[in-house]
Amino acid sequence: VDRSLVTLLTDYGGDDEFVGVCHAVIERIAPEARVIDLSHGIPRHDVRQGAAVLANALPYASPGVHLAIVDPGVGSTRKAIVVRTVEEERLLVGPDNGLLAPSIERFGGAAEAVDVSLSPARLEPVSATFHGRDVFAPVAAHLALGEAPSELGEPLEAGELAPLERTPPGIDPGRRVEASVAYVDRFGNAALELSADELVDSGLKLGHRVWVEAGGVTLDAVYLLTFADVPAGALLLYLDSYGNLALAVNRASAAERLGINSGDRVVLRPA
Amino acid sequence: VDRSLVTLLTDYGGDDEFVGVCHAVIERIAPEARVIDLSHGIPRHDVRQGAAVLANALPYASPGVHLAIVDPGVGSTRKAIVVRTVEEERLLVGPDNGLLAPSIERFGGAAEAVDVSLSPARLEPVSATFHGRDVFAPVAAHLALGEAPSELGEPLEAGELAPLERTPPGIDPGRRVEASVAYVDRFGNAALELSADELVDSGLKLGHRVWVEAGGVTLDAVYLLTFADVPAGALLLYLDSYGNLALAVNRASAAERLGINSGDRVVLRPA
Amino acid sequence: VDRSLVTLLTDYGGDDEFVGVCHAVIERIAPEARVIDLSHGIPRHDVRQGAAVLANALPYASPGVHLAIVDPGVGSTRKAIVVRTVEEERLLVGPDNGLLAPSIERFGGAAEAVDVSLSPARLEPVSATFHGRDVFAPVAAHLALGEAPSELGEPLEAGELAPLERTPPGIDPGRRVEASVAYVDRFGNAALELSADELVDSGLKLGHRVWVEAGGVTLDAVYLLTFADVPAGALLLYLDSYGNLALAVNRASAAERLGINSGDRVVLRPA
Repeated sequence: VDRSLVTLLTDYGGDDEFVGVCHAVIERIAPEARVIDLSHGIPRHDVRQGAAVLANALPYASPGVHLAIVDPGVGSTRKAIVVRTVEEERLLVGPDNGLLAPSIERFGGAAEAVDVSLSPARLEPVSATFHGRDVFAPVAAHLALGEAPSELGEPLEAGELAPLERTPPGIDPGRRVEASVAYVDRFGNAALELSADELVDSGLKLGHRVWVEAGGVTLDAVYLLTFADVPAGALLLYLDSYGNLALAVNRASAAERLGINSGDRVVLRPA
Repeated sequence: VDRSLVTLLTDYGGDDEFVGVCHAVIERIAPEARVIDLSHGIPRHDVRQGAAVLANALPYASPGVHLAIVDPGVGSTRKAIVVRTVEEERLLVGPDNGLLAPSIERFGGAAEAVDVSLSPARLEPVSATFHGRDVFAPVAAHLALGEAPSELGEPLEAGELAPLERTPPGIDPGRRVEASVAYVDRFGNAALELSADELVDSGLKLGHRVWVEAGGVTLDAVYLLTFADVPAGALLLYLDSYGNLALAVNRASAAERLGINSGDRVVLRPA
Repeated sequence: VDRSLVTLLTDYGGDDEFVGVCHAVIERIAPEARVIDLSHGIPRHDVRQGAAVLANALPYASPGVHLAIVDPGVGSTRKAIVVRTVEEERLLVGPDNGLLAPSIERFGGAAEAVDVSLSPARLEPVSATFHGRDVFAPVAAHLALGEAPSELGEPLEAGELAPLERTPPGIDPGRRVEASVAYVDRFGNAALELSADELVDSGLKLGHRVWVEAGGVTLDAVYLLTFADVPAGALLLYLDSYGNLALAVNRASAAERLGINSGDRVVLRPA
């Protein structure tokens, strides 16, 4: 693991100085760290979408220190955590609200977990609202310096970590698949929370026509490889570039057409 | 001072290539410089907000070269300046329009000031509109190379520097505080221009109920530690993460509710 | 040429993780590369504007590896290319759709061109929609490692490269100039596709009054050096900071006033 690599993913957006101040804090503690911004455009407080985007992006990044902040509970009693993954020994840092859970799972589970809520690395005084600056960035920077997670907080059992709230898909093979929207990108493409195995179980196959029910609307779609295979304006199911089953409208927004957002349920039935 | 650290703060936004070209110019002159973007989301031409955000952010950054550009007078006769601060020897670079003033003050005043409007470091021909590229970035890059400010322009008296236009707060202790809005963040939280000392003078105390008058509206608020202590939609006074007295509405926008922007006056009276 | 410098320009925007994942991919292959983001705010699929902004920005950057992605044809048969320029030996990487053409021309033409559509550097499996991650970023990273373009794909004749579709200006010296809009910046300033030579041919001179015809509207303007020389709201012609003839409205948007966008035609006649 190259500890000097720190990746950042937040819902801080690009208008304020929040991201810049986190960069400055990391640089001040660990001037040799190289910081890569994965995304700061997660919709505010959308833990589910942040979790999905993080798990999609991390496999493309070198193993390192991976800080993620989507934290509607800042200032409450939720823990701040560091998790070392079984595979690749990645160090994930963030709030204990499920944001890190799919990434932990993707890398084989938690080999070690530490509660850094009261870490000696924190910047004092710790503000009530900006834990990115006062807790998370300093902890990530100390990890980048090579300090062990155990030096930065109190040990936690992996079983104590908060899961990502997720309504499991309902699958009636060949008849009906009900799944939640994992995330919506800026083109309005909507990825579903459906693992590769669940997709196989569902019996959905390339080329099939499908009824899509969401938000009171029912539309027909085809399950295809690429946008280019349907006319402009047509709805399709496809595997997005991360391998997730997703809904799209060629040259328009599926999220708008169906009135859906991350967390909403979608029902698919063979037509 | 680590001269190879350059921080950037501008009102250039994220849509155009202005920020990227400044990075490229700095890299070309000083390839070893490490550049941190503090913020490029300052509202266009809002010198007051830029000045407040810069002074808030800099204490979290290592001392280095700190370039700030919010420059409604580009192309006019306003000077371009470099200021070395008394404390920490930070090198501030920007237009002489008050943008740097609160940061200079925060670091003990100006130990040295230089007019770099006609600096030999400029890129020729100097455009009328893009001094970030042609004047400020090259000057910052030459400072990052270790050149002395005095090599890059003509000496100035600290007394000649433009102050930030600021209407001082009106304080009638225990009865009435009138102050300007320093900045509004993307959540609509509005920080007031009120120093820690002035806040003490005002007699405002945690837990007090306060009438807030702004833009023809009068609303009641409580002065509290965190958002979580009021119901959604309620107005509160609190100390923001930089220690500034600020107005917020829990889960909504105080700036919208009160119709205020940076520079507007707000009156507080005990209820 | 400093191969370890990689510049990026895309239409990926700031809301999604596309840019961050490209950074991660480059870092994973070439950890020593320094990456500068020139712009990610090119309007989606606007090849013409991307081409103009790239050609404007590159002369300010050190020669290196220059990756540009505005790629409406992703997933189709358009090639992915690397071009080495005659002057400065810059390595341009992107889709073969004209995006790179003005930059190639600015640096003396193509000394070498390579088709990297099926490059051994690609990440497998190559997705249908995210060639930035799977093709372009890996190829750029391998160039940053010092590999030769010829190791990364199949040779192409310079003459086979797609030109940028461009309707040449129509010039009737002293009477009429008709030119396309090259790009519109976020202030609504609109640069015209008119080379320095064509501008001389046109007979337009500083201080002249000009009728501007676009989108069914005819307005009068003056050809001046700076915005400050006209009243707020007045239309002017000026040379923008890259030396392109451009239309602007002092303190407002010329693009909105005239209803124009990149690609639209504008007619200028002496008044």
